[in-house]
Amino acid sequence: MELTEIYAPVADDMVKVEERLNSIGRVDFPHLAELVSYSLTSTGKMIRPALTLLSGTFYNYNLELLLSMATSVEVMHTATLVHDDAIDHSDVRRGRSTVYRLWGQEQAVLLGDYLFAEAGMLTAETENMRVIRNFSATLKTISHGEIDQAYNAFRPGQDREHYFKRIAQKTAALFSLSTESGAVLSNAPEESITILSQYGYNLGVGFQVVDDILDFIGTEEELGKPVGSDLTQGTITLPSLMILEKYPDDNPVKALFENKGGQAEIDRAIDMVKNSTIVGECYDIAQQYCDKACYDLKKLPDVESRTCLAELAGYIMRRNR
Amino acid sequence: MELTEIYAPVADDMVKVEERLNSIGRVDFPHLAELVSYSLTSTGKMIRPALTLLSGTFYNYNLELLLSMATSVEVMHTATLVHDDAIDHSDVRRGRSTVYRLWGQEQAVLLGDYLFAEAGMLTAETENMRVIRNFSATLKTISHGEIDQAYNAFRPGQDREHYFKRIAQKTAALFSLSTESGAVLSNAPEESITILSQYGYNLGVGFQVVDDILDFIGTEEELGKPVGSDLTQGTITLPSLMILEKYPDDNPVKALFENKGGQAEIDRAIDMVKNSTIVGECYDIAQQYCDKACYDLKKLPDVESRTCLAELAGYIMRRNR
Repeated sequence: MELTEIYAPVADDMVKVEERLNSIGRVDFPHLAELVSYSLTSTGKMIRPALTLLSGTFYNYNLELLLSMATSVEVMHTATLVHDDAIDHSDVRRGRSTVYRLWGQEQAVLLGDYLFAEAGMLTAETENMRVIRNFSATLKTISHGEIDQAYNAFRPGQDREHYFKRIAQKTAALFSLSTESGAVLSNAPEESITILSQYGYNLGVGFQVVDDILDFIGTEEELGKPVGSDLTQGTITLPSLMILEKYPDDNPVKALFENKGGQAEIDRAIDMVKNSTIVGECYDIAQQYCDKACYDLKKLPDVESRTCLAELAGYIMRRNR
Repeated sequence: MELTEIYAPVADDMVKVEERLNSIGRVDFPHLAELVSYSLTSTGKMIRPALTLLSGTFYNYNLELLLSMATSVEVMHTATLVHDDAIDHSDVRRGRSTVYRLWGQEQAVLLGDYLFAEAGMLTAETENMRVIRNFSATLKTISHGEIDQAYNAFRPGQDREHYFKRIAQKTAALFSLSTESGAVLSNAPEESITILSQYGYNLGVGFQVVDDILDFIGTEEELGKPVGSDLTQGTITLPSLMILEKYPDDNPVKALFENKGGQAEIDRAIDMVKNSTIVGECYDIAQQYCDKACYDLKKLPDVESRTCLAELAGYIMRRNR
């Protein structure tokens, strides 16, 4: 299935999410309106809002509440990307210039803050204390993961446990917020909330592992940003961990982290990943998380979305962007 | 009255706010613990949490709820300062090195995000939807004001109306959140909520006008940061607006903004402010806001805090740091 089919049960409401996103840019300060509109259009795959809406279809689908929260998770995600690009000095994302590139670091940092606040307001619209608490806790978890990643850039001695903990914070937490809040806002029973929350969490880990593979094997055109960005930023991911494990001597990642190399070492690392069993092994691990995500879905009511969530896990595995 | 006397009705609970602030730094990631503890200790005058607690004394003083919110407003304030310093490249604040200076821009941006999330969690503890909505709306307003200030740096043609609108966003909004949430969380009647909200708003404008005066007439030791920081950043404040109004020709602010000058022009602007009626005129305006803040306080119940809030306005006028 392609994404449009996977989103089919909530297709009309995904259009409404886009309308809500567009409406956020309608403010009376033209410069701010431009910043907000630019950052919230061309929003990529919109997986997180789709997760909220799809997760809301199993019980009492409350469009108004789900729409607020689906918009919120996309705005929060955008805010984290705007800040990431500002601190990484990234010029390109999703094939176009970043806010950092066009308006500078200062504006990017402040726009991110503005978008966090907007996401908070959208979450408050649900008037659901569990969702509201979870929202702030998730932002805290994401920031924790980002601080960890930045602090450990170019530091040797990181292991898989550390990696999986970090991607759980950076990525899986927001996937889990997206699905769990959809369940909570549709008055799902506690067992179903847990199933959907765990689905989101494991899907998020699988998603990030695939992202980290694509950073090595994708093309710049597919990725919408330079290949090898993670190593350029000094971020250890699963493929580079495997290089370190498999080739303890004469290792390009080790050399890079010991400040003994640059682009040549990154290119060599990319070649080593491509021309080894590493890609396959990483995909196997991503698949395990996606399988785990789907395992308990069968306990949910048999509605169309159940198949779509399972298909989404398949899509995440085979995507190339 | 000195601050300790003004805070007297809530002195014990201000100690509890400090304990809550300290507890936020107790996380299991040592680097993050260090960042958080550093940013939340040496917290300055603690005016905002004091406003929340004092505003909560007029009706049903609910310590648990007020403590969460008082801590939240201080954490939110700290988060904005950490981001301000990161984007302004400020090395010193309150007489010591900034997070930006010690750990770099990346860590400062991410720490600010973490603190915004922490403030959101503390606000959620109140489980009061009005306060929760107001919290996110205030963060949005502050970011709007900061974006306006950054966008208009070194831009000519700004007027007093623009200045007052901006400081209302940047500063008065959080003062107003502090007092209003104290009132709401103590079940104050609507009329009293309005009085305390307006008190906070006008006090905040007066506070910022005095801050902007001190940036010209203070010493580096008193300010805990370099004198003339606003002009260095290209930020127009009330004293520099008055220079522009009074000396339309051969004007150091105009020269600076037209990129025709540097420190010499800033020094000249400081001299012009000091050796003119500008300081007095600015203080008169600040006094008007402080008077306006206090005007309706007499309609509140006659408790000790009522005098303290009035005295706080006096303190804000005569402070030199």
